[in-house]
Amino acid sequence: MKINEKHYLTIWHDNSEDTVKIIDQTKLPFHFEIATLKTYQDGFDAIKKMLVRGAPLIGATAAYSLYLASKEKEDFNFLKEKIENIKTARPTAVNLAWAADRILKNIDQKNIKSSILNECKKICDEDIKISEQIGIHGLEVFKELNKKKINILTHCNAGWLATIDWGTATAPIYKARDAGLDQHVWVDETRPRNQGSSLTSYELLNEKIDHKIIADNTGGLLMQRGEVDVCIVGTDRVSKNGDVANKIGTYLKALAAKDNNIPFYVALPSTTYDKNILKGNDIPIEERSSDELSIVQGLDKNDNLHQVNIYPKGSKGFNLGFDITPAELVTGFITEKGVFKPEELEKVF
Amino acid sequence: MKINEKHYLTIWHDNSEDTVKIIDQTKLPFHFEIATLKTYQDGFDAIKKMLVRGAPLIGATAAYSLYLASKEKEDFNFLKEKIENIKTARPTAVNLAWAADRILKNIDQKNIKSSILNECKKICDEDIKISEQIGIHGLEVFKELNKKKINILTHCNAGWLATIDWGTATAPIYKARDAGLDQHVWVDETRPRNQGSSLTSYELLNEKIDHKIIADNTGGLLMQRGEVDVCIVGTDRVSKNGDVANKIGTYLKALAAKDNNIPFYVALPSTTYDKNILKGNDIPIEERSSDELSIVQGLDKNDNLHQVNIYPKGSKGFNLGFDITPAELVTGFITEKGVFKPEELEKVF
Repeated sequence: MKINEKHYLTIWHDNSEDTVKIIDQTKLPFHFEIATLKTYQDGFDAIKKMLVRGAPLIGATAAYSLYLASKEKEDFNFLKEKIENIKTARPTAVNLAWAADRILKNIDQKNIKSSILNECKKICDEDIKISEQIGIHGLEVFKELNKKKINILTHCNAGWLATIDWGTATAPIYKARDAGLDQHVWVDETRPRNQGSSLTSYELLNEKIDHKIIADNTGGLLMQRGEVDVCIVGTDRVSKNGDVANKIGTYLKALAAKDNNIPFYVALPSTTYDKNILKGNDIPIEERSSDELSIVQGLDKNDNLHQVNIYPKGSKGFNLGFDITPAELVTGFITEKGVFKPEELEKVF
Repeated sequence: MKINEKHYLTIWHDNSEDTVKIIDQTKLPFHFEIATLKTYQDGFDAIKKMLVRGAPLIGATAAYSLYLASKEKEDFNFLKEKIENIKTARPTAVNLAWAADRILKNIDQKNIKSSILNECKKICDEDIKISEQIGIHGLEVFKELNKKKINILTHCNAGWLATIDWGTATAPIYKARDAGLDQHVWVDETRPRNQGSSLTSYELLNEKIDHKIIADNTGGLLMQRGEVDVCIVGTDRVSKNGDVANKIGTYLKALAAKDNNIPFYVALPSTTYDKNILKGNDIPIEERSSDELSIVQGLDKNDNLHQVNIYPKGSKGFNLGFDITPAELVTGFITEKGVFKPEELEKVF
């Protein structure tokens, strides 16, 4: 997708430098900066400190981090250690472990470095195709709503910045734009880290998609008023039975959608479906620093970036990253293979 | 209640100056400042610009604004005009019209100024008693939960800063503290204006009540995990059938409470019950400037206050102030006369 009219991916191998490039998403929407990952530790930190985020992109970055590790020491046992280590960078997104294990399985012991690099590129290429297929199937969902103008609500960023390109929840939006459908997107700002306002809105602005940012509190009233036709969100992990771990607050929107008979879809690349976890309550939920609640960054009138503390001195916060939306609140999963009910997932994947 | 160990009310008549004093709540929690209202327009602006907020305090400030008007011109027709005008300062809280009409009804044409001042003081004294009674009845609700430690979730600020003293939703918390109950409060930060983190947390800190601030997105997961025993919120207006207008996002918490079998109480002073409005959908919902979403203020490391824009340049926001929680999601209304089901309200009040 485009930023300032130029096409980018979220991660790529720089051939000339033999490094890995990412967009530093902690700087968005204020500064667009490309960061260079030179070492395994750079990759680990990029995931942990959320320079990259979003389940598919976390997976791809984990893979590339292992490539960088192989450059440091082209040794199978050393890499096996790093493969286990990278899984600890963040707990909730299953793509992290999935990508690391995939690298392990495909290492050619005679050509460790090049086999890993090859696999990284395959992971990224496949992810782009998966997202695009989600877009194609999601477009059909939008068409079936049979509305003159579709009002879509999304939470957090499951856009192309969370994947390699297209996004998961946003792919149908981009496909709908290309197909000439009239649409408007309600973007939950998504506290505490504001991935909705900072990333989804930034994406949609750059792609010229009509949208407005709303406080996370607002979606319920908009649904009561008939101003939302469909909800679509991404996910960090879906358990075998179809429970959905996604950014904290997703569950509240799913409840409101149910209460107002509004379809609630989850864009699910198969890489994010975890058959090994039976139900949502078993998915580990990340607790993050409460500084993410109290410290907010933005631009002053002179475009200088400031970090400010918005809480009273002495107040404590509590910061959980994800919640669980029970399968029964999900209308359907939009996957690269089509749209499925929660109970159908385990047969298809 | 106390700020820095000293007892305050939110509004009072300064005898020596013959002015009205308020706490400027737009400066909290960063600076504690007393503002002086000298003219009717000062009072109108204090309501409109939210130096004061919270339904009962808006009512009291409206009354005192009319007293200030009577000082400008002790004339009944002039005052009748101001009485209609003050009702336009904000649309959702019914206490505004209620207080203005009460002043009108009680003007002594021979002693206009002193009769209004007298009525202002009565409104404030009564409000304090109403809040305290809500606290006494709410304490019984808490005791009946029969928990070793009660985890309470509240949204926005229906604390003493929203009333004259005690608060509505917080009165039971202060009464529970005085009764020796063990409790912990989850404080929704309450975007966009953060009245939860800026005011409720500030209040509870000053009153030494154990609490943590959470993103508005978090309450659902906490309820799923059994970490919330009861929800209690205030209200800006309750319609005849028991639908509740309250700060945007309240509805989402009520849905989650229902989904997890957690009691959801609304602290309701009778002054906020509006028999003239049949159902929630007829309550006017205020749309406010989207700057309230995008502009955030806080302290930098050197304790300098900055306002920063947290949204991408060019992004648009949409800012609705309140939502409607349907009566069927309300376990009970804690009023100064006792605890009632939605359908009982119209018989009692």
